[in-house]
Amino acid sequence: MPVLRKPYLLFLADVTLPSDAKTGFGLRDWCGADVIGECRLPEGTVSLGLPELRPAEAAAAGAGSLVIGVAVVGGQVPRSWLPVLIEALDHGMDVVSGMHTRLSSFPELVDAAARGGGRLVDVRVTDRVIPTGTGLKRPGRRLLTVGTDCALGKKYTALAITRALQATGTKATFRATGQTGIMIAGDGIAVDAVVADFVAGAAELLSPANDPDHWDVIEGQGALFHPAYAGVTMGLVHGSQPDAIVLCHDPSRQTIEDFPHMPLPPLRVAIDRYLEAARLTNPAVTCVGIAINSSYLSDDEWRRYQVALVEELALPVCDPMRTGVDAITRHLLAHFA
Amino acid sequence: MPVLRKPYLLFLADVTLPSDAKTGFGLRDWCGADVIGECRLPEGTVSLGLPELRPAEAAAAGAGSLVIGVAVVGGQVPRSWLPVLIEALDHGMDVVSGMHTRLSSFPELVDAAARGGGRLVDVRVTDRVIPTGTGLKRPGRRLLTVGTDCALGKKYTALAITRALQATGTKATFRATGQTGIMIAGDGIAVDAVVADFVAGAAELLSPANDPDHWDVIEGQGALFHPAYAGVTMGLVHGSQPDAIVLCHDPSRQTIEDFPHMPLPPLRVAIDRYLEAARLTNPAVTCVGIAINSSYLSDDEWRRYQVALVEELALPVCDPMRTGVDAITRHLLAHFA
Repeated sequence: MPVLRKPYLLFLADVTLPSDAKTGFGLRDWCGADVIGECRLPEGTVSLGLPELRPAEAAAAGAGSLVIGVAVVGGQVPRSWLPVLIEALDHGMDVVSGMHTRLSSFPELVDAAARGGGRLVDVRVTDRVIPTGTGLKRPGRRLLTVGTDCALGKKYTALAITRALQATGTKATFRATGQTGIMIAGDGIAVDAVVADFVAGAAELLSPANDPDHWDVIEGQGALFHPAYAGVTMGLVHGSQPDAIVLCHDPSRQTIEDFPHMPLPPLRVAIDRYLEAARLTNPAVTCVGIAINSSYLSDDEWRRYQVALVEELALPVCDPMRTGVDAITRHLLAHFA
Repeated sequence: MPVLRKPYLLFLADVTLPSDAKTGFGLRDWCGADVIGECRLPEGTVSLGLPELRPAEAAAAGAGSLVIGVAVVGGQVPRSWLPVLIEALDHGMDVVSGMHTRLSSFPELVDAAARGGGRLVDVRVTDRVIPTGTGLKRPGRRLLTVGTDCALGKKYTALAITRALQATGTKATFRATGQTGIMIAGDGIAVDAVVADFVAGAAELLSPANDPDHWDVIEGQGALFHPAYAGVTMGLVHGSQPDAIVLCHDPSRQTIEDFPHMPLPPLRVAIDRYLEAARLTNPAVTCVGIAINSSYLSDDEWRRYQVALVEELALPVCDPMRTGVDAITRHLLAHFA
């Protein structure tokens, strides 16, 4: 995948549920300065509150890419979206997609890209040659967000920690491992789409050697306790060689999402298992905090939960949405001072 | 990958080192009844001691496939091999390859396959739709060979255990996860070539529901302690849901092969880590023995090593090449009686 061309026009297609436009909301919230507008089909009803621009208008205003900002069940690109994508390509923009359908499977889009000079970018596909992992230490510091399950805030937490570190004047870069993260960062590798033998190598490539005081903050994927995806998580842990991990958890979940027969481990066990895995390539790894997705808790419930967890684990416990993550970054910077 | 068509003619190409014909030796040793001959180029000097047959002669004798029985550095198919492959295809045989070069990348082979009606089979490529893992238990029993490292006898041990079980009248099937194993079994999935998200699902597909007293004996891949491949191993462990594991080890290795900075764990630690990983999808998993590749030990050294290890681990310790694996299968059958 090439580096993405910003700024973006976000395409919200024909979706009518805000949850189907999660990608668009993520981009608006985390790289808003790179987004100059939104556009949709007549059937679409979801808005991000951004200026409405046709692709031609966005191109005139300097947009580099039209980004498909929706994620619908099945991941297919319907033909009804093509006219808008073609208009963007005809005005020289790239089209960026995280859908399963390859953009290049539509001859009309290939032709329009050739006419306009723009690119068809599928963020789940990487063209880089990915080596196998080496396990060799490289300079620079790395933090990896890990979780008790999928989809409970690992990307959000990594983005929040990156910002919080930068706000203290610390050199920090968010490293994206999934499609929305890649669109936000403009670069990255969708590690779950890599051939299995190369996941650790992809993670090494994603966070290359850097200044000794620079932090790569790497978006985690999957969970070591997930019966389908733990292998991806393991490869990402080994290749990232984290100096620090932050464990993400949603206390409303008792079992892996959609796997009611798979209970989540206690948080202390989860931390120990991640540290044990990470020690293979970085024996000095440590856990610097817990990021809780507490959206199902009242303020009172959250406060009680947080106090109890701090006592149990003797680590900073944040909800990035409620409290920010300063307690975690303070602990991190003190530990690595 | 389709089920392979036996019997085989083994193509030894132009290799001059027996180690480059490891695949051919493995096929001769483990499915000799399915191999009717060997053929090579004039430059080749390695023989498996089988009848020498031209592809036309092998086809007349009923051969279903010409199998490329060599593994050379880089994994490329040179053009000098094409005439022999084309002769096989022109006589209606399939050509089977575990090389990195796709057979279908040669138009001459595609044409010859069309003429003869045979198939070009790359065993590292699977055409099956692979689902993600479910973690759901399925009937039948499963044994997985695991290792402290790659390439120290996991395939050999799984094949030996399968034979030993069958010799006792126990229903048992070898399940292949790598290219040579797939050629021996005639079927299987090269799990390291699967997209990372689907490794556990591939392992579930590979050992489907079976009779409650049937054993799938699954060829392990990689190692949990390998900085490049542990993710593949983890997915294979979770999807295989082993009831029993056998740990394979080569006592001449102190570190992961080609990774001198990565020490091997003590065997007790290795067993515990594999059991811990496997418990996610099968809490009742147990270790039933140790398979040692003792080729670097004298008979005296082996006896002392074996006695010490039995004492330390309280498990049967075999070298499949020296002692066979009956001690392991006896222990297995007693445990699961």
